[in-house]
This record gives sequence, structure tokens and C-alpha cells, in this order.
Amino acid sequence: MTEIPYKIYLEENEMPTSWYNLRADMINKPAPLLNPATGKPMTAAELGGVFCDELVAQELDDTTAYIAIPEEIRSFYKMYRPSPLVRAYCLEEKLQTPAKIYYKFEGNNTSGSHKLNSAIAQAYYAKKQGLKGVTTETGAGQWGTALSMACAYLGLDCRVYMVKISYEQKPFRREVMRTYGASVTPSPSMNTEVGKKILAEHPGTTGSLGCAISEAVEDAVTHEGYRYVLGSVLNQVLLHQSVIGLEAKAAMDKYGIKPDIIIGCAGGGSNLGGLISPFMGEKLRGEADYRFIAVEPASCPSFTRGVFAYDFCDTGMICPLAKMYTIGSSYIPAPNHAGGLRFHGMSPVLSQLYHDKYMEAVAVKQTDVFEAAEYFARCEGILPAPESSHAILAAINEAKKCKETGEEKTILFGLTGTGYFDMVAYEKFHDGDMTNYIPTDEELQASIARLPKVD
Amino acid sequence: MTEIPYKIYLEENEMPTSWYNLRADMINKPAPLLNPATGKPMTAAELGGVFCDELVAQELDDTTAYIAIPEEIRSFYKMYRPSPLVRAYCLEEKLQTPAKIYYKFEGNNTSGSHKLNSAIAQAYYAKKQGLKGVTTETGAGQWGTALSMACAYLGLDCRVYMVKISYEQKPFRREVMRTYGASVTPSPSMNTEVGKKILAEHPGTTGSLGCAISEAVEDAVTHEGYRYVLGSVLNQVLLHQSVIGLEAKAAMDKYGIKPDIIIGCAGGGSNLGGLISPFMGEKLRGEADYRFIAVEPASCPSFTRGVFAYDFCDTGMICPLAKMYTIGSSYIPAPNHAGGLRFHGMSPVLSQLYHDKYMEAVAVKQTDVFEAAEYFARCEGILPAPESSHAILAAINEAKKCKETGEEKTILFGLTGTGYFDMVAYEKFHDGDMTNYIPTDEELQASIARLPKVD
Repeated sequence: MTEIPYKIYLEENEMPTSWYNLRADMINKPAPLLNPATGKPMTAAELGGVFCDELVAQELDDTTAYIAIPEEIRSFYKMYRPSPLVRAYCLEEKLQTPAKIYYKFEGNNTSGSHKLNSAIAQAYYAKKQGLKGVTTETGAGQWGTALSMACAYLGLDCRVYMVKISYEQKPFRREVMRTYGASVTPSPSMNTEVGKKILAEHPGTTGSLGCAISEAVEDAVTHEGYRYVLGSVLNQVLLHQSVIGLEAKAAMDKYGIKPDIIIGCAGGGSNLGGLISPFMGEKLRGEADYRFIAVEPASCPSFTRGVFAYDFCDTGMICPLAKMYTIGSSYIPAPNHAGGLRFHGMSPVLSQLYHDKYMEAVAVKQTDVFEAAEYFARCEGILPAPESSHAILAAINEAKKCKETGEEKTILFGLTGTGYFDMVAYEKFHDGDMTNYIPTDEELQASIARLPKVD
Repeated sequence: MTEIPYKIYLEENEMPTSWYNLRADMINKPAPLLNPATGKPMTAAELGGVFCDELVAQELDDTTAYIAIPEEIRSFYKMYRPSPLVRAYCLEEKLQTPAKIYYKFEGNNTSGSHKLNSAIAQAYYAKKQGLKGVTTETGAGQWGTALSMACAYLGLDCRVYMVKISYEQKPFRREVMRTYGASVTPSPSMNTEVGKKILAEHPGTTGSLGCAISEAVEDAVTHEGYRYVLGSVLNQVLLHQSVIGLEAKAAMDKYGIKPDIIIGCAGGGSNLGGLISPFMGEKLRGEADYRFIAVEPASCPSFTRGVFAYDFCDTGMICPLAKMYTIGSSYIPAPNHAGGLRFHGMSPVLSQLYHDKYMEAVAVKQTDVFEAAEYFARCEGILPAPESSHAILAAINEAKKCKETGEEKTILFGLTGTGYFDMVAYEKFHDGDMTNYIPTDEELQASIARLPKVD
């Protein structure tokens, strides 16, 4: 048997030339986005006012299995991809487990996460459409950084609305975006009507993601030559992120490795959806079987404690309605340090798959997550992002089960990014100041009771 | 002709199995370290009180060309190496230069720089000697982070004295070291006699690298089972860092690429010495010719404005004397944002080679360096460390000359690390608050006049 190297890198000519559209193989397709005013499915024309035309087409296409990756995007991918598939030899050794653990590491780029895979695609289509620029919101800052990098590369204007509290607490993320030429505005701001209104009503507010989304959308629709872009949840984002899973599968196939369990953290679903895509495709087509595990924070448990229903994607309730697992768009998750997982809902694609029992989900506590993060950092070298560490914890737990049962299972998990801009969280953990907030049943019921009524 | 990929990764079995000791091929060997008390060369026994035995042997060995890399170190290297040799297609395109530009990127590991290559080697020999732990100092924090990671991997205690001002201004670097289990003490501290003395004399001091070195050395020599380790300047460090050049050369050889110009930033010389080693070996043996360019900050110009003389390696004047290019150990360089290049002297190996005219040197201004850094980040994606950006600037300047002359030269430079913990510097640059300090002739003459007298 061929010895498996520590890191498997595909050759450039082995990199995917098409994205894989998982929806094409789904028996029960994800439900369409609805126009909240009419209760009817959003048309391409309606979506086109906010999003780029080609991205609207991708958003609505649930039949084409493979969509070619344009040459320009593939050139950009070559600057930081293929990402390595890593065999966690040191982690296995430390755990003394018979399990074989692999992770697909997406953190080796300056944006520090997998977000760049979709950022370059969305920026490319905006450029191709002859637009001047794009607008977006960012919370923790990974998505905003990725979009800034993509726009700098293409010479596109990039306007980021950054939740004010993050803007103030994460000046370094903001500075990276400025290095890439983006304009970064603390939200709420005086740039938009919605921002002015909120500031008038709540002069001291530190902002919210919902408010930042509203400002970014207003900025796009009120300026000629601009569109709004989004880093997760949407079908198009999962499509672009399929590059993660396609590369992982190609690398595994090359060495004859077949994973038994595939694990990813889940906030809006961009990383998990991308990682599992080609494997889930095989499962849907009955060609192979895998266990899929979504790992979410116990503080924001949309899969494990939410309902499968139509809801707004934003807390401002200006975006279309999506059918998804949700704890309610009016629910404000407690502050936790995995900002990328603090979303009340979940990708409609993943929600449908979870509903149809193709996937499992677990919710984990923040302090356990950081314990796993530190354990991992010390043996595997990489300092993981808090988001990614949810998947690490679940992978370690599965590997420990193998130790008990003696099973030699192969585990693959997504290591989405690095934690270099999350050291405040690590500091809290080291100092013993980290808390765990788990919503009560009453809180969730109250929020779910406020879901919009849809026939 | 084979098309050159964006990134060349060696296979694991193509990674170097030995370090290359450049001194073996030098006609004029670097001068020995002297005991400041006796003026005589330091003996192995004298050095052994401070450094690990095997590292002392490597420090003194100027005849063995190849020294095998122990299996355990090679296993650790496999976690983050081989590092990619990158063809800067996008930079070439943006510059519209006929030059072909390559860089060896050492920033894809959590320590964020090449320092890890020597940290794991030094920690390994300490472990092998049965020691409990090691002590060191850190300024900007890259070396301290790297050593923490290596010690965590080997289960060795790690005590880092961090210059107090850095400790306070760079809490995130400190926190990364804590994640890896290191104890990080702001220096001067009450842990050591020298620290107490300095605090009594200067109660409000924010510390200096010289003071931190003194504390780390005292801590090592006064505690059973501890030794002191250092991240640059020493011959052993250049030996370990030769892995950079060996990989770069193997990758280039694989594709039939021969560089005309090889460029690296130079502080203490660890990166530059490592990168050029095998190429310089060929030049010394008369097998090939290359231009080598050391790039230093104009604020701390040891090569370009210093003298070749014996001097202390530390400002505290407790370490041995080294013959090197120096602007005087009593000279305190103005604060600049490339902390890794603020050293008054230079590696004795590189100093001898420069003195013998095997190498050129240029000094560059800080604001020009950050302009190059941002330019590079926007087209190549990677946010570079300020130190590394010195090499970027020199490479861009050489590529621009090629544009003028039409010459298709091949340029190789070392991209030593990432700037994720240097965003304060980038912010100053963006805000127009960055200054350039260039020492006056009088200042340098005064400092050089205070060099120790050696026969």
C-alpha cells in the first residue's frame, strides 16, 4: 500500500474545472426563495435588482450538475489553491486512536478562510457584467476580507459595512481590508437611509449583522453600477464552495482513501455544503454511503433545536424568505467567539438534506470547542479559527469512539480557517473568562412563534 | 518547454534529508566567537554552559558540508513543509516586466515565518539532551511563537522574555504563545537579578531586546536543566535555515530554472543565509554564478554603513563577541515596523561573504517598503510581513530595471512571513503617519567609536 503523505496537494492540472451543483442530484429540491410582499417565488428579474445576473442564474439553477469555472477564476484559484488535504498523523498519535483523520485545510490564504472561493466568483461575475463595484456586510470580518482581496485583484470597488462593535474591536481585520483598498464603514452609518433611521432611534447602538445587511443592500440598489453580494446561505455560494469537496475527493481518490464520516462546522452552511457536495452527490445517487455530521454552536442551534420553515435571512426582514432550519430571525444569539456561526438559519440546500435525513447534526459548547482548538494547535501546529474548531471537536469525539470500539474509521473534516484575528477569544479561554450560553426552550419558542406566516 | 505552475511543491520524498553547512565551502571562514573576558575564542565547554551540546558542535563545525536532519525534525518539517516556491505571475503581469519572478514563501505556518525551521531543531536537541526546557527572548514575537510551537510539540518547557513594550502592544502574539503553553514574561521582570537591577534603576522602562536577552540567559544558566536558544545571527541557525534554500533549489532544478538574482531581507541574517546557502555554495566552488542582494532597513544599515569588526551580539554586552558588520551594539535603532530587522549587527557568515564581495547589499526606506508590500498584497494575494517586504521592494526594483533594458532575468526572493500581527504598522502607513528615520553619520560614528577593543 502506498504510504500516505502528511499533506496531499493536487497538481494544478488535477484541480477542478467545474463546480458541482448538488441540487441537480437532489430528489427533493430546496424550496424556492419567496418574495415577502407577494408570497410568490422570487423571479430572476426581482433578484437581478440586487444580485448580478449570472449569479441569479446560478441561484435558480437546480438541474445543471456541473458548471464550468471560468478561466479567470481558475487563475485566481491557482494563487492559493489547491489547498492541502492533511493527514493528522500527530493528532491520531496523541489520541492513540485507530481512526485515520484527515482535514481539508482552507486557511492558507490571507483572508484566512474558505470564503475566498466564493468571493472571487461573485466579484468576477460583477466585473463581467460591467459593474463598478459590490457592497456587502461583514461581522467577524472573514467574508469582508475575502471580498476585498477578490475586488483588489479585479480592480472592482468594494464597500463593506462592518458591524460597529466588530469595527471597533477588530481594527486589524478592518486594516487588512483597507490594505486591499476596500472602504470599510462601521454600521449603522449615515451613508444610508436605514442607517440614519436606526442611529436616530438608537444613538448608542453598536450595530448588528441584520442592520449591516440592510445598509449594504440599500447602498447597492441606490447606486448605479453596484450589486450586493453575500458570503453564505445562498445556493450560489454552496456551488462555488464545492471546489473544497471536489479537491478533497480527488486527493482521496488518488490514494484510494474512502472516508466513513465527513464533518464540518455549520453557520450559514457555506463550508459544510462545499465540503460534502461531491460525497453527498454519490450518496444521493446511491453510489456510496457516508455519514455526514454538521456541527453547530449550542448557543445558536438551528439544526438541532430549530424548525424547518420559511423565514427571513436577515434580522432586518428586508431579504427574501428562505425555507430552512431556523430558530427565528428575531432571535439574537448570545455573543460567542465563533462569529461566523452566529446565524439564526441555515442554507436551504443543507436544510432540505437534513430534513430528508441524509445528514446528522450536533451542537457543542464553546468552552469544549476552545479546549479542542488548543489541543489541536499543540499537536498539529495550526492555530484554528473558533468556527473551524467546532469540527475539530466533533472529529476528536468520533476518533475517541473508535478508540473505544477499536474501529479503524476514516474521518474527514473541514478546517475552514485560522484564528490569527481571534486572539481575544483565546485570551478569554486562557484566563478562564469564557462562558457558555445555551438558549432556554422558552426563548426559542418565543422567537419561533414570530416566524412569518407563509401558506 | 514545461509550463511552470503557479506554485511548485516538492514531494515529501524530495525534501532535504541534510542541512547544508555553507562554512565548509568558504575559503575565508567566519571568524570565531570570542570570550569578552579573555579575548580568546569561545571553547565548546564555555558555550556548553549556555547552549545545548549538539548545537555547540554545530556552531563550531566549519568543515562538515552536510549534516543529517534527524528523523524527528523531518517529521515535524512535514507538518508545514515543503513550503511552496511561487511563480509571481500576477506581479510580473502588473509590472509588465520581462523578468521572471519567483518567491519562496515561508509564511504558511502558524508562527508566520521561517523561524520555525530552527526553533524545532534547537528544541529537539534540548529534548535529546534530557533538558527540561529552554529560555529565549522575543521582540516582535515571531521567534517566540515559533519556539513555543516547537516546545509544545516536544513537551518541553518554554520561557519567553518578551520586550515589555511589545508585550503590551502585541497582546495577540503573546496569546498565541500562551496557546502553545509557553510562559511569557514582560522584560525587564522580577524573575532575574539583571531584571530587578534594571527595574530599580529605571522603574518606568519599557524594556529592550538587549535586556530581554540578558534575562533569558540568566534564567537558563541559573536553572538546572535549562539552556538558552537564539533565533538568528548564529552559525547553527543559518545551518538549520539552509532547508529554505535547499528546497528552493530542488524545486527550481526540477523545472530547469536558474535564478540570476537572489534577494533576501537581512536583519540578523537567518532567512537570507538560509535561502542563499546552496546557491552561494555553487558560487564558492566556482560551479555557477549568481548575484546575491541583501536588503536592510535604512534605519539600521549594518551592511551598507557599518564596519566589519568584533562587537557584542547584545546591547547588554554579556554575550560573546562576534566579528561582523555592525553599527555598534550601543546604537539603538529608531523604532521601525520591521522588528525582525532591528539588529545592530549581522551573521558572521554573511558578514565574511559580504566582506569578500560575494554579495551586494542595499538599504531601503520604510515607507517605500510598505508601498511595495501593499502593491504585492493586492496582486499576489498574500499580506506580507514588513521584514519580508524589504525583499519584495528590491525584487520589484530589479524587475523594473529588466523592463527598461528588456532583459529576461530570473529573480528569486525570500518571502519570509505574513503580516497578520503587524496591522498597526499597516494602519500607520494607510493613515500617512509612517515616518522614515535614517541615522546621521555622526550618530553612527559615535556608536562605532564605542566598539570593544580586540587585538
